[in-house]
Amino acid sequence: MIITITWSGGRAIPTIKAEDLREIGFQIFKAAGVPEDEARLVSDFLVRANLDGHDSHGVIRIPPYVERVLEGKIKVGVKPEIIRETPNSAVIDGRWGFGQVVGVRAMGIAIEKAKENTVGIVTVFNCNHVGRLSDYTVMAAENDMVGVAMANCITRVAPYGGMERMLGTCPISFAFPVGEEIPFIFDMATSICAEGKIRVKLHEGKRLPYKCIVDKEGNLSDDPKDLYEGGAILPFGGEVGYKGFGLGLVVEILGGILSGTGCSCSEGFRGGNGLFLEAINIQSFMDINRFKSEIDDMIRRVRNSKPRPGFKRVMTPGEVEYINRMERLKKGIHIPEKTWEELVKTAEKFNLDIEGFIKH
Amino acid sequence: MIITITWSGGRAIPTIKAEDLREIGFQIFKAAGVPEDEARLVSDFLVRANLDGHDSHGVIRIPPYVERVLEGKIKVGVKPEIIRETPNSAVIDGRWGFGQVVGVRAMGIAIEKAKENTVGIVTVFNCNHVGRLSDYTVMAAENDMVGVAMANCITRVAPYGGMERMLGTCPISFAFPVGEEIPFIFDMATSICAEGKIRVKLHEGKRLPYKCIVDKEGNLSDDPKDLYEGGAILPFGGEVGYKGFGLGLVVEILGGILSGTGCSCSEGFRGGNGLFLEAINIQSFMDINRFKSEIDDMIRRVRNSKPRPGFKRVMTPGEVEYINRMERLKKGIHIPEKTWEELVKTAEKFNLDIEGFIKH
Repeated sequence: MIITITWSGGRAIPTIKAEDLREIGFQIFKAAGVPEDEARLVSDFLVRANLDGHDSHGVIRIPPYVERVLEGKIKVGVKPEIIRETPNSAVIDGRWGFGQVVGVRAMGIAIEKAKENTVGIVTVFNCNHVGRLSDYTVMAAENDMVGVAMANCITRVAPYGGMERMLGTCPISFAFPVGEEIPFIFDMATSICAEGKIRVKLHEGKRLPYKCIVDKEGNLSDDPKDLYEGGAILPFGGEVGYKGFGLGLVVEILGGILSGTGCSCSEGFRGGNGLFLEAINIQSFMDINRFKSEIDDMIRRVRNSKPRPGFKRVMTPGEVEYINRMERLKKGIHIPEKTWEELVKTAEKFNLDIEGFIKH
Repeated sequence: MIITITWSGGRAIPTIKAEDLREIGFQIFKAAGVPEDEARLVSDFLVRANLDGHDSHGVIRIPPYVERVLEGKIKVGVKPEIIRETPNSAVIDGRWGFGQVVGVRAMGIAIEKAKENTVGIVTVFNCNHVGRLSDYTVMAAENDMVGVAMANCITRVAPYGGMERMLGTCPISFAFPVGEEIPFIFDMATSICAEGKIRVKLHEGKRLPYKCIVDKEGNLSDDPKDLYEGGAILPFGGEVGYKGFGLGLVVEILGGILSGTGCSCSEGFRGGNGLFLEAINIQSFMDINRFKSEIDDMIRRVRNSKPRPGFKRVMTPGEVEYINRMERLKKGIHIPEKTWEELVKTAEKFNLDIEGFIKH
């Protein structure tokens, strides 16, 4: 049952409950030959991105993921392999499994190591798109640990002062356990924005909110088309964009070089996401309850501080996502028409009628 | 001998060789009662900042440091104490020694742990101003390790969308070993700029290059005075300043809470710098020579990529500092008149004639 019908350009756009959307993703992946546990995991992660308001990382990815499964670029049912290991570290060959499957396995190993030995660092190569890094750092936070994650990826970003694509959007995420407060989850691209956000504007036929790309001549632009016609995304930082650029290179080194993936501008770059995942056991440094009460206190003080003219209030990292999640869990997830059509088309390849999975 | 005389407002400003400047700092600190090893270390670090072009962190700090020594706020000759330890971690009470002395000792412990056990993380509380974080991360890089450092500090920065001082400038640094290339050293404040850079403009009577602060009413401003009259520095990021803000909070948590220093906006904040220092042994992940050749290759590709209109060329993190260092090692360090006068005045307290230490 499609619960809410809104209108855009005179046509219906469905709003769907999270559990139904999860089932739709699961059934499509299963039909494409993905083992049930992997299908469930990947679908859950994509829907979580929609819930959090990051539609660019949500079910919009199902059609290209299915395509990659059918092409054999995403290998299903393979077991990631540890190729180098110490009590505090591991290097993992993801064997081109689903990025989410490999990422969860790798962060799980980091957490196990941190439980025993304070810190676990796991790097990963031969790994498909992992989605949002916060999906992995929250695993550490849920285990009363600090979670750190970085990922390099195909070049789309120009250096500060440059115009060629020399580095990936290279996200970084940190998550921390909290007491009673909204989870502190930080996840950012080191470019001004993720490529997915620009693609969304392209699909919507809209301009970008500010000049966050350069065209193929190196001129600043807010036209999303320019990115796909030989342009590049800028590193974040505004006047001090060398900071976002520097952080991006740090991610290329830790996620790319240290994992064996190679940095994205190198000839040896293996493709996909090169990962750096770390879990730090807080209990080795201080009482975990004291940590949680101090982070709660910090979050409250910052959130209650005075906004400046033009802003309604101060928000802490992870708060927008939390608010979206609460609302979308209740009201359902709004799926743009184009995304819905592509889901329907993908499902039809396997003779699936996805509207039949809408129960709520 | 003052080698070069340049003119500013009709008055002489000396340019001094690094070795003489180091001797001047050493002699002043020694005269103030600082043990020779500490006096040497602190003076060396300050002059290194001048060599690298970061005058805000250089010998300009000698007079306030001396003042703090005389007031007993910087305690000389104390030994930092490990209060909690595992094979991979330590929490250190710096006992209010010189930040540089405590920082070197703490990073030394992190490196020793990483040599044995892949990763060493050391947090520090009761620690005075440590200067530039890159001084500690390069220690790890010189040992073929990844160096990571974060420091929280007194509140001077507004949250994204806020106007109250709720977090410190909260720097982060990463350093990596390289083969034949210019060292890759990344060191940034998570605010638009360090407070020292704004103070320099205030002393020069100049405007800031762009609106990087808010005044006490929350309006954007480029007048350095506004910071010292109830204003705050903005987090870095431009349109996406929530990224710089989020990173700043990460530093408050890792440098502040995890060290026992407390985050800077809390009532329990101990003051000084709360440190998070980490060394990661690359050899546990891959052959160190392969790492170095890959990072060299990345640095070269990025540096040789095409600049965009308005830029001469692309530079990698640490390159500006390297160029400054090479030039200033040869030509000497240019000391602004006001800084020189304050050094002379400080030295006179101990009947020292610092011009007598200028030998080159």
